[in-house]
This record gives sequence, C-alpha cells and structure tokens, in this order.
Amino acid sequence: MRLRDFGLRNGINEVIVITKGEKLNTAPIGIIVENEDSIFAKAKLFPSHTRSNVEKGSFFVANVVNDAVLFALATFEDLNEDYFESLDPPILRNSLAFCEFEAKIRGPIVHLRLSKGKVLRSEIRAVNRGFNAVIEALIFATRLKLNPKFAEKIRDCYEIIEKCGGEKEKTAMEIIKKKTGIL
Amino acid sequence: MRLRDFGLRNGINEVIVITKGEKLNTAPIGIIVENEDSIFAKAKLFPSHTRSNVEKGSFFVANVVNDAVLFALATFEDLNEDYFESLDPPILRNSLAFCEFEAKIRGPIVHLRLSKGKVLRSEIRAVNRGFNAVIEALIFATRLKLNPKFAEKIRDCYEIIEKCGGEKEKTAMEIIKKKTGIL
Repeated sequence: MRLRDFGLRNGINEVIVITKGEKLNTAPIGIIVENEDSIFAKAKLFPSHTRSNVEKGSFFVANVVNDAVLFALATFEDLNEDYFESLDPPILRNSLAFCEFEAKIRGPIVHLRLSKGKVLRSEIRAVNRGFNAVIEALIFATRLKLNPKFAEKIRDCYEIIEKCGGEKEKTAMEIIKKKTGIL
Repeated sequence: MRLRDFGLRNGINEVIVITKGEKLNTAPIGIIVENEDSIFAKAKLFPSHTRSNVEKGSFFVANVVNDAVLFALATFEDLNEDYFESLDPPILRNSLAFCEFEAKIRGPIVHLRLSKGKVLRSEIRAVNRGFNAVIEALIFATRLKLNPKFAEKIRDCYEIIEKCGGEKEKTAMEIIKKKTGIL
C-alpha cells in the first residue's frame, strides 16, 4: 500500500478532507506528498473546523475528487449527507478514491500516515482548462480578504471556465459568483 | 461507443493529436465537445503541420494524456518514435486512451467523427495545481509573440509549479524555460 495507489502523487494534492465534530465537516485541503511510494504525507492546517476536529480525535479521510461542483461547495460550506454515497467510511458521491489517515498535529502541520485506502472509480478525463480554472478561482476566493485584487484573477478564471468548461464547471462558477459576489 | 468512454467530455479537451506527413506530427489540440454521449466533435485548426497533414489525408488520432512532460515537449517540437509505445495506432507512452477520428476540414474548423477508441490505462490522480499551471504556461508560451506581457503570466505559473508540482511538472517547467527563454 502506498499513496500513489490512491491517486496521491508527489507534490501538493488538492482533495476534499472529511472530519467529524458535532457533524461531518468537508474541506478542500492540499495534501503534501514527498514520497508517493510511502504512506506518509502532511498538510498545513490553519485554525479551522478540520483542525479542531482533528485535535479532538476525529478521523481524517481524504476523498480524491474530480467534480468541480463538489470542490466549489466544499470551499464555502459543509456538504450535507445528501452529497455522500457512504457515511462510514465517509465517501462523497463520485469520489475516485478515499484514503484514511492517522493524523498528528504539530504546530501548523498535520502529519499523516495512511492507514486504509480504496480506489472506487477509475474514470479518465482529458485535461479541461475550465476545471483547472475553477480550482484556481476557489483558491483566490478563499484569499479574497487578504487581497481584494484577487477579484480580477477570479474574473480571468471565469473567462476560461466559460470557454473551456462543461456543465459542472459552469455550475461551479455560478456557486463562486453567488458566494463571493464577484460577477 | 461515445466520446466520454475515452475521457472526452463536454467542453474543450486538451489532448495530443498525432497526424502523419513525411513523419509523425504531434501537437496539443483542444477538442471541442458539445455532446459527450455522441461520436461527434470538432477543433479549431489554424495553419500548421497538423492541418496540412489532414488536408493530405492523414489519420487524426487523439491521445488522452496526463503527463506534463509530454505536453511540454509536444508544444515545442514533434515527439520522436522513442516517445511512442505503439506506432500503429500511434500511442504515446503512458497515454490513458486513444481515439481515432475521421476528419473533415471546413474553413478554420476540423469536424471529427469518432471511428475507434480504447482506454489504455485508468490511472487516477488527485488535482495538482502544478500540472494545471504547466498547461496554462504552455498556452501563454504559444501566444507569446502576440503579447509579450504573457511572459509575466508564465512566471506566475512557474511559482505554482515550484510550489505544487511533482518531478514531471518541474521537468516540464525546465523545458518551457529553455524553449521560451522566460526564466
């Protein structure tokens, strides 16, 4: 068993992490992998529900997802149970794979040790710049308070989504517009 | 048989297209899909080796690829036979799928009709912003003559590749640096 078996490769892997506090929490997280042939990874965890759930002993389950709408929704709110195809282990609908990790927090970093994983679907998809632009727009959206100039970057992403995206990407763009107010 | 079976989905699909003139030509092309459940697609084809090969009756084979280095190399030069795992049909090493199309040129558009396709590998990979930034940098690199300001955009991509990419993405970045002179 190694990280790459479940789609986690060297570099930063943008996934949706599910933890549990009073209710299920879903958050996009970048999992940092230095050796994809190992079971060890890490992530930066700033103060957040994800972090406080882990501090209180929650499981830490990463879902490998290629659905632009799920990424958009998880960025702004917790996905409710309707978005899950399984609750134990927690698996979002259409997830490609899930990985369960033992998680230990040290300072701003959570150290991760893969304990279980499964490939659920092995759907292939050609590169879509619209999908990629959704991910970039979401990054800028979460940093908008730090730098209002990111509004312009988000609009650049909209142009690419309009031109290259499919239905999911365009729905994700509408979510971003609604949540950020950047039209 | 439908486009989505081979990873081509609604929107613009960035793939590597192989045609044959005096020798094999490899070029990144955006295949436009309006109905992924059909066998029909199209692409813009400006004057290029790809276009003149099709005009002379070449086959038109799309490879669905998720390898940053292949995208970078194919943007700047033709990939030689060492990069192929099969020559008939033409399949680049590590391609996820290939699709053969009947191609008819009308004005700037090539109209495509899927005649054959096969999924070769069903490798999953979590979203990597470094990979996505390689694709964006390549788009800007090909348009650099139109607008020298794209140099700055390419440098923005380098930052993301450095931070988020794996080895393949960093190798692709070195190729972009060498070919464009943008450091």
